[in-house]
Amino acid sequence: MTVIKQINIEDLEKIARGAAFLGTGGGGDPLIGMLLAKHAITEFGPVKVIQVDDLEDDANIFSSAMLGAPSIMLEKGAGGDDIALAVTILEEKLNCKADAILPMEMGGINSMIPIVAAARLGLPILDADGMGRAFPELDMVTFTIGGISATPMAMTNEHLETFIVETSSCKKAEQFARVIATESGASACISAYPMNGKQVKEFAVKETLSLAMGIGSSIEDGRGESSPVENLLNYLRKTPYYNQCKVLFDGKVTDIKREVTNGWSIGHCHLEAIKGDEPQFEIMFQNEYLVARQDNKVRAIVPDLICTVDRETAEPIPAERLKYGQRIKVIGTSAAPIMRTPAALDIFGPKCFGIDDEFIPIENLE
Amino acid sequence: MTVIKQINIEDLEKIARGAAFLGTGGGGDPLIGMLLAKHAITEFGPVKVIQVDDLEDDANIFSSAMLGAPSIMLEKGAGGDDIALAVTILEEKLNCKADAILPMEMGGINSMIPIVAAARLGLPILDADGMGRAFPELDMVTFTIGGISATPMAMTNEHLETFIVETSSCKKAEQFARVIATESGASACISAYPMNGKQVKEFAVKETLSLAMGIGSSIEDGRGESSPVENLLNYLRKTPYYNQCKVLFDGKVTDIKREVTNGWSIGHCHLEAIKGDEPQFEIMFQNEYLVARQDNKVRAIVPDLICTVDRETAEPIPAERLKYGQRIKVIGTSAAPIMRTPAALDIFGPKCFGIDDEFIPIENLE
Repeated sequence: MTVIKQINIEDLEKIARGAAFLGTGGGGDPLIGMLLAKHAITEFGPVKVIQVDDLEDDANIFSSAMLGAPSIMLEKGAGGDDIALAVTILEEKLNCKADAILPMEMGGINSMIPIVAAARLGLPILDADGMGRAFPELDMVTFTIGGISATPMAMTNEHLETFIVETSSCKKAEQFARVIATESGASACISAYPMNGKQVKEFAVKETLSLAMGIGSSIEDGRGESSPVENLLNYLRKTPYYNQCKVLFDGKVTDIKREVTNGWSIGHCHLEAIKGDEPQFEIMFQNEYLVARQDNKVRAIVPDLICTVDRETAEPIPAERLKYGQRIKVIGTSAAPIMRTPAALDIFGPKCFGIDDEFIPIENLE
Repeated sequence: MTVIKQINIEDLEKIARGAAFLGTGGGGDPLIGMLLAKHAITEFGPVKVIQVDDLEDDANIFSSAMLGAPSIMLEKGAGGDDIALAVTILEEKLNCKADAILPMEMGGINSMIPIVAAARLGLPILDADGMGRAFPELDMVTFTIGGISATPMAMTNEHLETFIVETSSCKKAEQFARVIATESGASACISAYPMNGKQVKEFAVKETLSLAMGIGSSIEDGRGESSPVENLLNYLRKTPYYNQCKVLFDGKVTDIKREVTNGWSIGHCHLEAIKGDEPQFEIMFQNEYLVARQDNKVRAIVPDLICTVDRETAEPIPAERLKYGQRIKVIGTSAAPIMRTPAALDIFGPKCFGIDDEFIPIENLE
């Protein structure tokens, strides 16, 4: 696969579109983040992309993300100053300068936020993240598997109010980040899991920025083809992580329920088949899609990816944008291997979301 | 009046008892704090007390307090390490050493917490605080009148998790402190409103540690007298702040309702007269007593002090300990003059608690 060397303005839409797919229904709308990233690159210039394996072991790596309810981020966004400030105050706390910015998640708005941080701070961005998708909670990253502390963690909000938090566990970091984001008006900017180059090499999910761009490109390129969805699947089959992929359902939305609770967007979506009398299909989400069921059988389950796309154009549709009568295809894909280990399942497997079903890899499900 | 020069173990009970009175029904049970302070003085030695007017203008003054629901503090307390740590991490943040510890409020447990901090850190404590009583919210201090920022503010909890918070207003500092305390299990330790000596001289309520000790002593000394409550009133009449004082009601508890909401203890208490057929008496509280009414007339109202004491022994009884059938006297007193100005009423007058009645000084009420 081709790796990306630099992010220019014209790349942003592709990355955002790919990240919307990897957002698995959540992660916040990347289009909002894209506007911020466009503005930052226009003002501060293109962002250099570096590969994890090229890092010095003692490099200082700082993450950048937004945290909160996607439906609120849609309306509120972030200013830009707040995104860079989270990194800056963590640099001050740790008394060292960042050598590169690391995305926390390559799904949704959080594919764009680190680009804003990198552009504004004049730093390179790493072609990697902590999950190769999106997840609703801060501790649900591969870095947690590596025993890396989420704190000291910096948070900022649009009033440029700041927070430096040190907790006894990644789960506690998530809990405090959540209440601070909620009190900040349901979203906040964050820099957590400060790491050195060695740790990033060991635990990051690599080349995911390039993969987001590849997915976005394949959706754009597929528009002229007879089947854009098939074009996307053809690309996914060639990727190192998402190669076990299939259309799980082809249907229309018959019921969508979502509510914002404790800073999360929680709900479910019911689908009926476009053709024939296939049994109803159901997707549950907590920001992201967690499990897809049909006829009481699991069809795909977290941490594997469940994605909704327009059935004609393959355009990713986040859970926030689903509406009654919409015609979509549901695509399931495998997650990166590091995301499917027993240690990984302890952190973001089905049980972590209160789901009783065991994780079964999508390639072993009907 | 006599000012205190040093706090020894035998002084703690007097100060705690006086602070329970000044807690105006809230502020957390000082007996819990007293155990911590006893332990700290036993381990680290007596605490030197200094007067505000003896401070250098450029002295670094750090406050110390607990924040949370009194009913939870009763059960949970604090460890001691967490109390000192809040000061230490704020010293680190500000890159300067504390010259003295300043109590935030001289009511309830927060009379004792700064003694613990001072003992453990080997620092003197100031004979002063930010209200000369207790109040439910962090921004409700005389320092806010002076335009002093509540932040940077440090918080810690019993797991020694730490938080450095910088907000755009004292009210926002209160809001974030509240959610962090709530997420910490309904209470946390705090050091806020870092100040220099000049600012403390201008805005602190002076000699309140000595006054708490004086009130506690007068209650203890009154036990041998024919009327302990009258003995207490005689002392209060000689104080610089609490001299407008009277027994508002002599009755028994007929109804007490309290609930913990958002980290506060909110409720009301109804009383019936012991003798005669006086109209019912009602006290409303949000941690502290806010307004006392009888026959639809205000008898005393915040920021003046409303205190409940045992009718036989004058022992202060916090709202958390009130129970059906209990026989108490309700005492009202004037607050310090700096607490009754228009600027003060904007911060902790009746309207700040959603009470429609105007503030009327107790000496002008029947």
